[in-house]
Amino acid sequence: MGFDWVSFTTDYGTSDAFVAICKGVLAGIAPRCRVLDVTHHIGAQDVRRGASVLAAAVPYLPPSVHVAVVDPGVGTARRGIVVSAGASVLVGPDNGLLLPAADALGGVSGCFELSERRFHLPVVAATFHGRDIFAPVAAHLANGELPGAFGGEVDPASLVRLPAPVSRVADGVIEAEIVGVDHFGNVQLAAGPDALAGFGMSATVEFGQERFAVTVGRTFGDVPVGALLLHVDSSGAVEIAVNSGSAAAVLGGESGVVVVRRG
Amino acid sequence: MGFDWVSFTTDYGTSDAFVAICKGVLAGIAPRCRVLDVTHHIGAQDVRRGASVLAAAVPYLPPSVHVAVVDPGVGTARRGIVVSAGASVLVGPDNGLLLPAADALGGVSGCFELSERRFHLPVVAATFHGRDIFAPVAAHLANGELPGAFGGEVDPASLVRLPAPVSRVADGVIEAEIVGVDHFGNVQLAAGPDALAGFGMSATVEFGQERFAVTVGRTFGDVPVGALLLHVDSSGAVEIAVNSGSAAAVLGGESGVVVVRRG
Amino acid sequence: MGFDWVSFTTDYGTSDAFVAICKGVLAGIAPRCRVLDVTHHIGAQDVRRGASVLAAAVPYLPPSVHVAVVDPGVGTARRGIVVSAGASVLVGPDNGLLLPAADALGGVSGCFELSERRFHLPVVAATFHGRDIFAPVAAHLANGELPGAFGGEVDPASLVRLPAPVSRVADGVIEAEIVGVDHFGNVQLAAGPDALAGFGMSATVEFGQERFAVTVGRTFGDVPVGALLLHVDSSGAVEIAVNSGSAAAVLGGESGVVVVRRG
Repeated sequence: MGFDWVSFTTDYGTSDAFVAICKGVLAGIAPRCRVLDVTHHIGAQDVRRGASVLAAAVPYLPPSVHVAVVDPGVGTARRGIVVSAGASVLVGPDNGLLLPAADALGGVSGCFELSERRFHLPVVAATFHGRDIFAPVAAHLANGELPGAFGGEVDPASLVRLPAPVSRVADGVIEAEIVGVDHFGNVQLAAGPDALAGFGMSATVEFGQERFAVTVGRTFGDVPVGALLLHVDSSGAVEIAVNSGSAAAVLGGESGVVVVRRG
Repeated sequence: MGFDWVSFTTDYGTSDAFVAICKGVLAGIAPRCRVLDVTHHIGAQDVRRGASVLAAAVPYLPPSVHVAVVDPGVGTARRGIVVSAGASVLVGPDNGLLLPAADALGGVSGCFELSERRFHLPVVAATFHGRDIFAPVAAHLANGELPGAFGGEVDPASLVRLPAPVSRVADGVIEAEIVGVDHFGNVQLAAGPDALAGFGMSATVEFGQERFAVTVGRTFGDVPVGALLLHVDSSGAVEIAVNSGSAAAVLGGESGVVVVRRG
Repeated sequence: MGFDWVSFTTDYGTSDAFVAICKGVLAGIAPRCRVLDVTHHIGAQDVRRGASVLAAAVPYLPPSVHVAVVDPGVGTARRGIVVSAGASVLVGPDNGLLLPAADALGGVSGCFELSERRFHLPVVAATFHGRDIFAPVAAHLANGELPGAFGGEVDPASLVRLPAPVSRVADGVIEAEIVGVDHFGNVQLAAGPDALAGFGMSATVEFGQERFAVTVGRTFGDVPVGALLLHVDSSGAVEIAVNSGSAAAVLGGESGVVVVRRG
């Protein structure tokens, strides 16, 4: 019982002691668990990006305690929760961060509030629940404690959910919000692979006042270096990319709604 | 005997092979030890910041060999040392880097110079003692070698100590040096939690030529988004923060002395 | 049989889920293997820098499956390969990335194409072979599968090799390409330790239109803070450094040919 793996996703950065402190707390309570870092470079307080990166990762991770902390409301009335989903559990603040990952794992099958103080560190600072609540709870879950031990049951319908991004797909026209820009500058849209059905080899992309001709293809090398590519990315989303370059830089933005037209 | 854990703190960055090379040396000598990275993003040669981050981390880590390398004097006459403190040992250069962490672990209980060449790699480069001295010494400590095996005893009073930061607390006035700015832009002062005794809900902060009204509170959400907060942070220090923003950016600096006045 | 260690080198960055996804795939197939990150901060698509950092690391790592992915040609006709070298194997694209590391391990002793689909994930995306091909192949190698199982044998002479950097050493004159600039701004040249034979304590460096007087020494502290140093670095290459500063910033560039003259 319990979990061999704890995944860890935060906006803590890696320049300070925050991440190591949480890992130290984990190691103290659950010495045998292994930590798999998803990322600690979510933009500060960017709950939406944290949710999206975590949801992208979890389908490929082994059954884990997934701890995620992007938590602008730390120390306020927002709840801490543990969510069961598939063969994993997720631990973090109730601010929308965990639910897309839970959905990616098959949906919420149980949820409890982290109200039982005996699983927290003896002193809980108002500004570092990662250390004082989420890491020790995760360690106890790794050790085999059941989610229901940590506090009262929570109705999944009461959980905070982030607003869905704009995503309208009509015949030959995709109107979709940018949901993420990765390290390479690839621009991911809120549209699944079917959105490109019926598209030929070319399309136009409108963003702000600008309009771009793009090639519809499979991979970066399908277009010349520096040219725009419209493709289904490795997660199944429609993505705008540039071969050996940054689509976000070419488009001139990282958020907003993009309109893609066939032809 | 020995240690399951080696913590690792450097200014090496993570773009080059330096960190991996040290971990490879560790794994070669002590294959079962587990490495817990504190950070490799201490500013280049910033011994003071390295000391501060390491000292913040160690109280939360399991008994470990704490290796730290921020070492502008590498290859010069400065000594390499192993320091015993609490249930842990610290390894690194004698330049002030290790002592605040040793203090946080209960104080120096023993110190030896790293003069025994048989514990170093066969060839010691003048510019990479992390690889050639500190990592192999740490691995032998993890394997159970005692600190006294590595070289001659060192009088703790002879160790290099960083100058203490400015920290004057009088009734209702705190004059304190900035000791660190974290990834979020929170500004930590050289003042403990008692410094805020007798403060009400408001204070003024003077930094350089500027003066700021701040709210005294418990957590970021106690003030509106973008507003300044004065609080005791999760390590017990007085900190200036901005809800969902960077206090360092608002104050306009990352080092120097701040004056905080009650009311 | 098999390997305890998998080293991992990419240009994926650490802000997205890419690295964690590959580690999750590894953990799913080879739960006991341990991952040693070399770096994920190779510049996007910079195959040459990736090759150089990997080659610097591997001599110090335990016998491993070295997975490296800097892969602008992903999804095109370029091959995926496994290369045996010394006691290790290397896995990645056939674009020159792996060969300098193979050379550092003693040279290529065998090479096979990654054509056997049963070792890949069931669906292979055109843009993420790290997840769908290289990570699962690495996991199977860690589990003890032999390189020849993954596909047809490849003639090592047919492998893509990066062009050698400019490196001309005559008596007292070194004309050498910059092969890397590290995190500290140290500038590594394509010249070995013998290139400085016969040099005294001073030299001149020409780069672009500029000319600099440099001190020949052993370590950073041999020159005043801010001064230029010419030395043999910890990997055995001739390097231009600045004590507590960035040589790349002083020289005003990170690529090109440098001329060093004795005296």
